[in-house]
Amino acid sequence: MEVMQVLHMNGGMGETSYANNSLLQRKVILMTKPITEAAVTALFSTADTTFWASLAIADLGCSSGPNTLVAMSEIITIVIDLCKAMNHELPEFQVFLNDLPGNDFNTIFGSLLPKFEQKLSEQMKGKYGASATPSCFFNGVPGSFYGRLFARESLHLLHSSYSLMWLSQVPRGVEGNKGNIYIARSSPPGVIRAYYEQFQRDFSTFLECRGQELVVGGRMVLTLLGRRSDDPSSKECCSIWELLAIALNQMVSEGLIEEEKLDSFNIPQYMPSPKEVRLEVQKQGSFSMDCLEVSEVNWSVFDSDFDPNVVSEDEGCNLVRCMRAVAEPLLVNHFGEEIIDEVFKRYGAQLAARMSEENPAFVNVVISLKKIA
Amino acid sequence: MEVMQVLHMNGGMGETSYANNSLLQRKVILMTKPITEAAVTALFSTADTTFWASLAIADLGCSSGPNTLVAMSEIITIVIDLCKAMNHELPEFQVFLNDLPGNDFNTIFGSLLPKFEQKLSEQMKGKYGASATPSCFFNGVPGSFYGRLFARESLHLLHSSYSLMWLSQVPRGVEGNKGNIYIARSSPPGVIRAYYEQFQRDFSTFLECRGQELVVGGRMVLTLLGRRSDDPSSKECCSIWELLAIALNQMVSEGLIEEEKLDSFNIPQYMPSPKEVRLEVQKQGSFSMDCLEVSEVNWSVFDSDFDPNVVSEDEGCNLVRCMRAVAEPLLVNHFGEEIIDEVFKRYGAQLAARMSEENPAFVNVVISLKKIA
Repeated sequence: MEVMQVLHMNGGMGETSYANNSLLQRKVILMTKPITEAAVTALFSTADTTFWASLAIADLGCSSGPNTLVAMSEIITIVIDLCKAMNHELPEFQVFLNDLPGNDFNTIFGSLLPKFEQKLSEQMKGKYGASATPSCFFNGVPGSFYGRLFARESLHLLHSSYSLMWLSQVPRGVEGNKGNIYIARSSPPGVIRAYYEQFQRDFSTFLECRGQELVVGGRMVLTLLGRRSDDPSSKECCSIWELLAIALNQMVSEGLIEEEKLDSFNIPQYMPSPKEVRLEVQKQGSFSMDCLEVSEVNWSVFDSDFDPNVVSEDEGCNLVRCMRAVAEPLLVNHFGEEIIDEVFKRYGAQLAARMSEENPAFVNVVISLKKIA
Repeated sequence: MEVMQVLHMNGGMGETSYANNSLLQRKVILMTKPITEAAVTALFSTADTTFWASLAIADLGCSSGPNTLVAMSEIITIVIDLCKAMNHELPEFQVFLNDLPGNDFNTIFGSLLPKFEQKLSEQMKGKYGASATPSCFFNGVPGSFYGRLFARESLHLLHSSYSLMWLSQVPRGVEGNKGNIYIARSSPPGVIRAYYEQFQRDFSTFLECRGQELVVGGRMVLTLLGRRSDDPSSKECCSIWELLAIALNQMVSEGLIEEEKLDSFNIPQYMPSPKEVRLEVQKQGSFSMDCLEVSEVNWSVFDSDFDPNVVSEDEGCNLVRCMRAVAEPLLVNHFGEEIIDEVFKRYGAQLAARMSEENPAFVNVVISLKKIA
């Protein structure tokens, strides 16, 4: 499987679309706002003044939907408030929106950006008067962030949320992971090692590339789905995929899926511990760590009153829609279209059952980095 | 009519698509290669060396089809040859592809770019050995070039072909242009003035914006559809739309189109003379003119052996397909879908008749500008 070709969130605006099922990801972006704020403030307190004229910011893994511009919007607002407080003229903003080439950039350019620009302009007028609207220049940047995307030292501030746990490929050497689709208690040690080594390679490549692209003193705020435990087969990160594996195994035992099909399917993801993330940053050497935080979002986030527009009928049901928006393209690519509804029906039941027994949570590892050399 | 929303080349890959009917535009880009070459060489002979690390080039009005990357590809090749000749390391290339937000950027990112990168890499390996492939970072930039698109002094080299004769809007004050759809012999003087003034406003806005975005010493090569004559109602530029007007008027007289509908339709285009172009450049003041050239491409270009893959059956027929790929969205927006086939059937007959009588040509005005202050 070519992850670069296959991995994308569910398109369109339908019931199973990412656009309509990305509340979790939105909540996570908003949760990291204090860290982003601190990073922007720190950037503006450095001696370098090149960014006063033109500030280049990027979101890596921006997707195409209601979350696409949330982080960039936050950063722009923080900078505007900061400039106003310092009585400084606004910089021009260069905004780079990156995702894989299969992402729906037409929707970003044709629909999301015009709405965003109008909203920003209204907000600014309300807050600071008619002339306060900043100059923002938007760019779509297609490509994998496990390679270079930008020119040398051309960026000041970089954001990425819920993207970096995706690996560049399914690790080699996971053939022995029978019955599982991710790291699990029953995974052979070699499988766990293969996953971890793939993460190490990918994450250090990422740091290497970004290190070349950021100016010295530039900042990077990254949020990954991860875990607290040192054990990569810990329940806190593995459950979410283990329950999908249970659903798939049921279907194997009923003859709906071939066993070999399941055995050859593995999720190209790794949910690292804070320690593992820190280790790669230290080893790679381009960045110092301003901040590392671990936070949690309950699986039942969809049931909270976080967004009054979302009426929750069934926790498992809402969570499974979110997981479907994320994982459906991978599953369709491997198993075909036909079994998908049944897979997610069973997966939904598994999720609901687990949530009725305990209160599981997604673990977020958030780091704020400074480019040092 | 909002030109920004309506103006785009015909999409898709079908018989009437721009992708399959853009041979004229391709020929024009290739014809200007010597001027582009001179501009690149001049840029590289200036004292400024910032672009040696990273060269930022842009195509304004890149469309989405076989021509999208032709100009950028030419420039990259010229720079590589130049660097090799000077025994200089290659710069990184930042490539910005601009068009209106309705342009199909998904096709550029998902299909055109991967093919282009592979071809470039093969060419370079063949020519200079395995390590010669340059680093190119591609950006899609949605927006009208009659406004700012890029950060201040962030570009080195800018190209635009067959885009700048499109106006930002149908000029105000052309209500008296009855029976015509563009400037014609029978147009009242006020209509001709309105068209010219709209061109002046738009072109000087364009120069103003690009003047802010280019570094001092930066270059810009622009090709516009234009005319040689001082008379804006000259046949050499007006015929192409006059023949469409004849087809539409026939349909009015047969009751297929309402007269008021035709009277309120005007093409948002102005084909300037070299003198008019030079005047705006001088008035605006950000650029000196390295070169101004006028060239011609016969309407029968489609009938030449320029591209052996294109088999010509009927000159009028091939030209009308090219005109349809360009003008159909404007016509559909104003007159509706139903009459389109009939319009282009009649327009094709008009074009064929004219071409059997004489040998008309499109006139290109090409300028090469240097940013001076």
